[in-house]
Amino acid sequence: MTMRPVPTFLQIPYADDPSELDVGIIGLPFDLGTTSGGRARLGPLEIRKAGMAWPRRYHQSMEKSPFDICKIADLGDLDLDYFDKEAALKDIEAYYNNFVDAGALPLGLGGDHLVTLPILRALGRKRPLGLVLFDAHPDTVDISMGSNLVSSTPFRRAIEEGVLDPRRVVEIGIRGAMGRRDHIDWAKSVGVTIIDIDELYDLGTDGAVAKAHEIIGHHPAYISFCIDGVDPVYAPGTGVRVPGGFTSYEAIRMIRKLDGLNVVGADIVEFSPPQDIGGITAELSVYLAFEAVSLFARTLDDRKK
Amino acid sequence: MTMRPVPTFLQIPYADDPSELDVGIIGLPFDLGTTSGGRARLGPLEIRKAGMAWPRRYHQSMEKSPFDICKIADLGDLDLDYFDKEAALKDIEAYYNNFVDAGALPLGLGGDHLVTLPILRALGRKRPLGLVLFDAHPDTVDISMGSNLVSSTPFRRAIEEGVLDPRRVVEIGIRGAMGRRDHIDWAKSVGVTIIDIDELYDLGTDGAVAKAHEIIGHHPAYISFCIDGVDPVYAPGTGVRVPGGFTSYEAIRMIRKLDGLNVVGADIVEFSPPQDIGGITAELSVYLAFEAVSLFARTLDDRKK
Amino acid sequence: MTMRPVPTFLQIPYADDPSELDVGIIGLPFDLGTTSGGRARLGPLEIRKAGMAWPRRYHQSMEKSPFDICKIADLGDLDLDYFDKEAALKDIEAYYNNFVDAGALPLGLGGDHLVTLPILRALGRKRPLGLVLFDAHPDTVDISMGSNLVSSTPFRRAIEEGVLDPRRVVEIGIRGAMGRRDHIDWAKSVGVTIIDIDELYDLGTDGAVAKAHEIIGHHPAYISFCIDGVDPVYAPGTGVRVPGGFTSYEAIRMIRKLDGLNVVGADIVEFSPPQDIGGITAELSVYLAFEAVSLFARTLDDRKK
Amino acid sequence: MTMRPVPTFLQIPYADDPSELDVGIIGLPFDLGTTSGGRARLGPLEIRKAGMAWPRRYHQSMEKSPFDICKIADLGDLDLDYFDKEAALKDIEAYYNNFVDAGALPLGLGGDHLVTLPILRALGRKRPLGLVLFDAHPDTVDISMGSNLVSSTPFRRAIEEGVLDPRRVVEIGIRGAMGRRDHIDWAKSVGVTIIDIDELYDLGTDGAVAKAHEIIGHHPAYISFCIDGVDPVYAPGTGVRVPGGFTSYEAIRMIRKLDGLNVVGADIVEFSPPQDIGGITAELSVYLAFEAVSLFARTLDDRKK
Amino acid sequence: MTMRPVPTFLQIPYADDPSELDVGIIGLPFDLGTTSGGRARLGPLEIRKAGMAWPRRYHQSMEKSPFDICKIADLGDLDLDYFDKEAALKDIEAYYNNFVDAGALPLGLGGDHLVTLPILRALGRKRPLGLVLFDAHPDTVDISMGSNLVSSTPFRRAIEEGVLDPRRVVEIGIRGAMGRRDHIDWAKSVGVTIIDIDELYDLGTDGAVAKAHEIIGHHPAYISFCIDGVDPVYAPGTGVRVPGGFTSYEAIRMIRKLDGLNVVGADIVEFSPPQDIGGITAELSVYLAFEAVSLFARTLDDRKK
Amino acid sequence: MTMRPVPTFLQIPYADDPSELDVGIIGLPFDLGTTSGGRARLGPLEIRKAGMAWPRRYHQSMEKSPFDICKIADLGDLDLDYFDKEAALKDIEAYYNNFVDAGALPLGLGGDHLVTLPILRALGRKRPLGLVLFDAHPDTVDISMGSNLVSSTPFRRAIEEGVLDPRRVVEIGIRGAMGRRDHIDWAKSVGVTIIDIDELYDLGTDGAVAKAHEIIGHHPAYISFCIDGVDPVYAPGTGVRVPGGFTSYEAIRMIRKLDGLNVVGADIVEFSPPQDIGGITAELSVYLAFEAVSLFARTLDDRKK
Repeated sequence: MTMRPVPTFLQIPYADDPSELDVGIIGLPFDLGTTSGGRARLGPLEIRKAGMAWPRRYHQSMEKSPFDICKIADLGDLDLDYFDKEAALKDIEAYYNNFVDAGALPLGLGGDHLVTLPILRALGRKRPLGLVLFDAHPDTVDISMGSNLVSSTPFRRAIEEGVLDPRRVVEIGIRGAMGRRDHIDWAKSVGVTIIDIDELYDLGTDGAVAKAHEIIGHHPAYISFCIDGVDPVYAPGTGVRVPGGFTSYEAIRMIRKLDGLNVVGADIVEFSPPQDIGGITAELSVYLAFEAVSLFARTLDDRKK
Repeated sequence: MTMRPVPTFLQIPYADDPSELDVGIIGLPFDLGTTSGGRARLGPLEIRKAGMAWPRRYHQSMEKSPFDICKIADLGDLDLDYFDKEAALKDIEAYYNNFVDAGALPLGLGGDHLVTLPILRALGRKRPLGLVLFDAHPDTVDISMGSNLVSSTPFRRAIEEGVLDPRRVVEIGIRGAMGRRDHIDWAKSVGVTIIDIDELYDLGTDGAVAKAHEIIGHHPAYISFCIDGVDPVYAPGTGVRVPGGFTSYEAIRMIRKLDGLNVVGADIVEFSPPQDIGGITAELSVYLAFEAVSLFARTLDDRKK
Repeated sequence: MTMRPVPTFLQIPYADDPSELDVGIIGLPFDLGTTSGGRARLGPLEIRKAGMAWPRRYHQSMEKSPFDICKIADLGDLDLDYFDKEAALKDIEAYYNNFVDAGALPLGLGGDHLVTLPILRALGRKRPLGLVLFDAHPDTVDISMGSNLVSSTPFRRAIEEGVLDPRRVVEIGIRGAMGRRDHIDWAKSVGVTIIDIDELYDLGTDGAVAKAHEIIGHHPAYISFCIDGVDPVYAPGTGVRVPGGFTSYEAIRMIRKLDGLNVVGADIVEFSPPQDIGGITAELSVYLAFEAVSLFARTLDDRKK
Repeated sequence: MTMRPVPTFLQIPYADDPSELDVGIIGLPFDLGTTSGGRARLGPLEIRKAGMAWPRRYHQSMEKSPFDICKIADLGDLDLDYFDKEAALKDIEAYYNNFVDAGALPLGLGGDHLVTLPILRALGRKRPLGLVLFDAHPDTVDISMGSNLVSSTPFRRAIEEGVLDPRRVVEIGIRGAMGRRDHIDWAKSVGVTIIDIDELYDLGTDGAVAKAHEIIGHHPAYISFCIDGVDPVYAPGTGVRVPGGFTSYEAIRMIRKLDGLNVVGADIVEFSPPQDIGGITAELSVYLAFEAVSLFARTLDDRKK
Repeated sequence: MTMRPVPTFLQIPYADDPSELDVGIIGLPFDLGTTSGGRARLGPLEIRKAGMAWPRRYHQSMEKSPFDICKIADLGDLDLDYFDKEAALKDIEAYYNNFVDAGALPLGLGGDHLVTLPILRALGRKRPLGLVLFDAHPDTVDISMGSNLVSSTPFRRAIEEGVLDPRRVVEIGIRGAMGRRDHIDWAKSVGVTIIDIDELYDLGTDGAVAKAHEIIGHHPAYISFCIDGVDPVYAPGTGVRVPGGFTSYEAIRMIRKLDGLNVVGADIVEFSPPQDIGGITAELSVYLAFEAVSLFARTLDDRKK
Repeated sequence: MTMRPVPTFLQIPYADDPSELDVGIIGLPFDLGTTSGGRARLGPLEIRKAGMAWPRRYHQSMEKSPFDICKIADLGDLDLDYFDKEAALKDIEAYYNNFVDAGALPLGLGGDHLVTLPILRALGRKRPLGLVLFDAHPDTVDISMGSNLVSSTPFRRAIEEGVLDPRRVVEIGIRGAMGRRDHIDWAKSVGVTIIDIDELYDLGTDGAVAKAHEIIGHHPAYISFCIDGVDPVYAPGTGVRVPGGFTSYEAIRMIRKLDGLNVVGADIVEFSPPQDIGGITAELSVYLAFEAVSLFARTLDDRKK
């Protein structure tokens, strides 16, 4: 398993070795789990491209630079098998096993949502994790298009395998017309909390995040941000656009309000560049990644205190 | 009057005869009433195209499929006269007269807003109807570009002809810079309730819909959704973009909250594909149609109880 | 059979001489202060083009036409030096000195944000002004790219020069990842009120505007609307897109709620047509200009009373 | 410090009265003859907008400015009935009758292709004209969509009415998959010369134009340029894109090589702005108009000699 | 192996059974062989959508309708395994084996270029075929991204397996910057004729096709049209754009000039809708398919004589 | 004068020092000479981004990799003064003086066309150079917008200053509607050869290049490729689109046929990313740069022989 060096995110340093880092950014150019027309494999490169125009360092509302608080580097893209889905998943898991042993917080840039499964296998191997998922879909399907390893199945598998604790899984933004519904019933039956779009707006974004904090507490938790959680006008660049989502500001505010969570890692997934319109989704992805990195920095800063 | 078979909406069955249906979807490829640069004539085909990618059946918040609750089919497009506006309007009216006799609920896919006039003539011929209109414009103009049958005049005519009861007409989302204002004065003078965009945000979407319920009660009511009611970033594909509208989510939520209304039919109008950007409006139209069909299903389900 | 002369911006009259006007619209095709990839120089022409399609006269919520209340004309574009930044700034200042002596209210169509500096020099030459700024950035940087006259420095200079009173400066919508932060510290240290995007949503748009009214009172105040204050989906056509902004409706509502302010002029800046998507930003700019003109009309109407 | 008045089409003068002109440009915002999804009604405005950026005066290959050779003005748009096709056609004919009596050469900016019929009625009323048509379609259909006055029928009618002499009609660029073919048989049977796209490339552009000269000789002839004659990549902004057309350069060269023809007028039709991509067709239309005006100037210059 | 009915190409009839047809159109929604960012899986649906607007029947230069000459139907899309590449290839081969036994000529709508391999296996199982390939790439790579079944390897495999006769393979349009070149050496070494883009323009399109006829003679031959053979401005919708290709007209003319070839089938591959710009590639694909069907019709017509 | 390291062109190595190179690629992010709405300053980054997707090494028609023949590296972008045009020009000249002393061939990625002036000053300081210019404009204007250092003046200045020998300057592709024509007269009067677009197509591309060879002979010559020389459909991303240009293939072929010229350097200028459509111009720029590098490699290979 080797890493290919690439132009780095926001012009931050490139690193080979996570062991000297607090936070590492990892490109996951994988879309072998996709059943839509998306090409999330191209996501990491386009996010890096969108961040090349000028360096952005300070977080206006933090009044600090995350890059001053902790050591953050871009580790490049995982050089995954191009055609063999299971081999690629194994490589992601192996890389993350190593990464987590090094002690750094990982921010994964997907890639379709199936990448989250091997990440959770690595991060949750000792203890089932909590999860905050921002998404239009619960991704708890059992089998789709004849496979149980698809971008709509990662949390089904992770719960079954015991790397996620369903009673500490909170899914925010679920909505829309679906091909089936049994997976929602299943998710609820095992204890997953679904804050669908109606409940999100009934509670308000702060209320929804407060509910997530309440459910997860100080349990180690992973954050997964599927770009289709945001309304398609804010993120047209994805395989399955689901109108009626939340806004960019609400997305950013919710990540920011996760401050205090015992976060163990995060990812931003399902950005498919060919469906993007005028770079809107690429630029939003840069901001979501910046917000995630800033959350990590606050978390690490708090841990030191 | 013949129907042309077409690729169907969301891959549901095609039907020739509405008499065996609960709900029928009818394409209305008409834009002879347009005074803008829109080409709403192309709307029905593009909505059907946008729904072809994959079947969507279950409504996440209903926790049911409308297609399981009642018998829904696509009846294709009305084969309207290409140049003769009045002949086309007569054909729409005749078709709907027949349709309503068959007992099914019609969902019309426009077409410019003038298509709603012959629909109301058919549906309101026995008793003046109530109306919930989502729109940036009141469409109560008397005469425009020298004609009294224009996309901005349908509700003026329908009220004058007695097929709409103005005291049971609620218009939501009205806003913007207008060419004239006498039509708003007229609408208010005859009893129309205008919940303009400021009032909509003052009341909140739930409050606005509650006001509509209060005004209309259990009176038979029609729902007309002009796509320009939504902000142009959510629906760029329309002839007259009016910045400062409501969001996709608010649109969907308001339709959903109309549950309980004695609904007799609905339409989605003024989607003009050539002005669309990257398919955003087409995909939203599919969702609005799905939401309308789901509202019909809930209504029919309630009636059975 | 008549011919229609080729139409102009919102089809209002053209005027050479501001002395007979209540309100004058002035094009400011200038972007020598830009450090991004924007081309705001092209803004005034594209705003005029976007307003050519049809005349819009009546303001739906005012229930009046601003053009009936006061005498409004388009004065065309300032013919600024193409390469010499300082000469161009002097010419803007000279023109506005003249304009303000004539007694009319100026609405400037930018142009990058540096155009606001010479305007403030002219309008504030007798007495430091208050300011309501809608923007993603505070634009109080000291020196950028080696220059103190850049699109991110106008309010630093204007405060230093005494043409703006920092205790009466309110900046709304500030947010995002920034290259630096010392300018925010400076702004706060001299008394500028920053209502960043989080506070804006905590207060609500009406609350934020109420706070602006409270701070500025009846002091003469200028309004500057940087198009990047709005979220990039509503205004993709700008040099620096900052995801997570407010909506078009919120923008329009905030301008409208400034009614009662002792307004001395306004501008709309940083619209860069080459970055626009499908004309979305151009059309929004027309509406913001219409809203500003309407605010002027209400102000003048009130002054007469 | 001077102000520039808001510019107009190619920034040439506006004129009310054709009698003092050599060449007049006339906007024909009409698309009541369209059976496609085009909106050619919007063409004249967009062509004028596309020409506003900067003044273009000199013709590189003529080594002269047409505007120096003869008196050219823009007469604005005809104010045509919005809904009544036959009334609008009558108005075009009446205007052109007047225009032709004034002695100027008309360049019409369409508008769908049906506008050419009333123009030919006016220009050919005394003597049947020759014609050079650049188009993908022969436009000699008899009846389409139930009407004999449609954008595909103008030359059928004009030949039948005796205002075109079919033996002096040359149609260049015809090609593609068609809904029917009887109209081509008819056209050939009455003597129309069709240089289809294969023959065009067999002869070369110069050969094709030479053939047109040979057929038409010094007979008075009209030039009609349908924008869909060009390949869709050069003119995506049209109602019916027919892949496999000629290039922009070939179009310009063919117009230029018509020098020597006894030209009585010209038009550029079927540009539909909503279908355009990034302004490509608008800018080409400006160039075709400039080339036509230059051809007129050369013609008038020659006549003086 | 089942077929899913779909909206048909150009509104022609749908058929289940190829045995009563002369020509059958088969959708091949497959892109498991892709190493670029393309999504050719979505191609067949978008080609069908692009052909829905209006029926096109007559071929202008044939002066006939192919649909009158022979029995042509759309057989829908092959329902291929979503994730298992080898299973999908087997299904394509099995379907084509059946198809070819039924005696009809197949037109495949891809799909990435790997679909051509199982087609050739079926069509060439009794006797190695000749081939005319239009493409920017020779697609004779041995192994790419670790696999020997990739969209750049089909003709290597087909030649090795003896279903293609390399001395009767003519590749037209090859060009560009490549990742490697050994595959070209190999192709030439086994006898493949490469008419690269320079030779194509040296010979002219007619000369190049004449050379193909000379090499293939009356040997049974397959035609494969990779959309990236055309210049990217004519076909932006593909995974690997190679600037400097031939034009749409040249493509159409070359297919047309293949008349007389003993053609056994054809395909149009590598159209990737997400990369398309404004529908340009979809519409061209419709025309190429129409041209291929017309070539089949002429071939069948000749065979009858 | 320092260089900023950047992600490199086509993933080739980055180098600090030209002295060990045969060929160096230099980014010139400069547009202070622009009088259009272009933003050529953004060109070098976008060309590098467009080349990131996959490594391209072999030149199909050379049958070799230029990177095998000689040592080629990317030297990054010149870090030019952001606002001071003359300072920036001095820095370009100083850098190139150094570069040329190191003995490598420079390929400049612009930037507006004014960048060529300081390059010529450096490369031609010992002996006036020959020039092959591909462009729509001759760029021999004396003064524009009040300045003699503008993107339309570089060759006027270079000839006046004696760094270009006008009798060895060949300009190919000149065409269009121009603001003035005196500059063409001047250019011809001093001996510049203009092969305008008509002559280019009369001679054919090979003939035009042969004429350039004849005029320049073995004199040291520079090649400047202005992207607006190509037709706007092939290069929409530029400040001044001039319809009626040559094709991508013709551009590539002409560069390739310059083989044998005593080339001393080259540039590709006037690519303005904000005006691009779907990345078409960026990808073409990559290919033109690859072709230029390949020409350099052939030249150096020949010199060794």
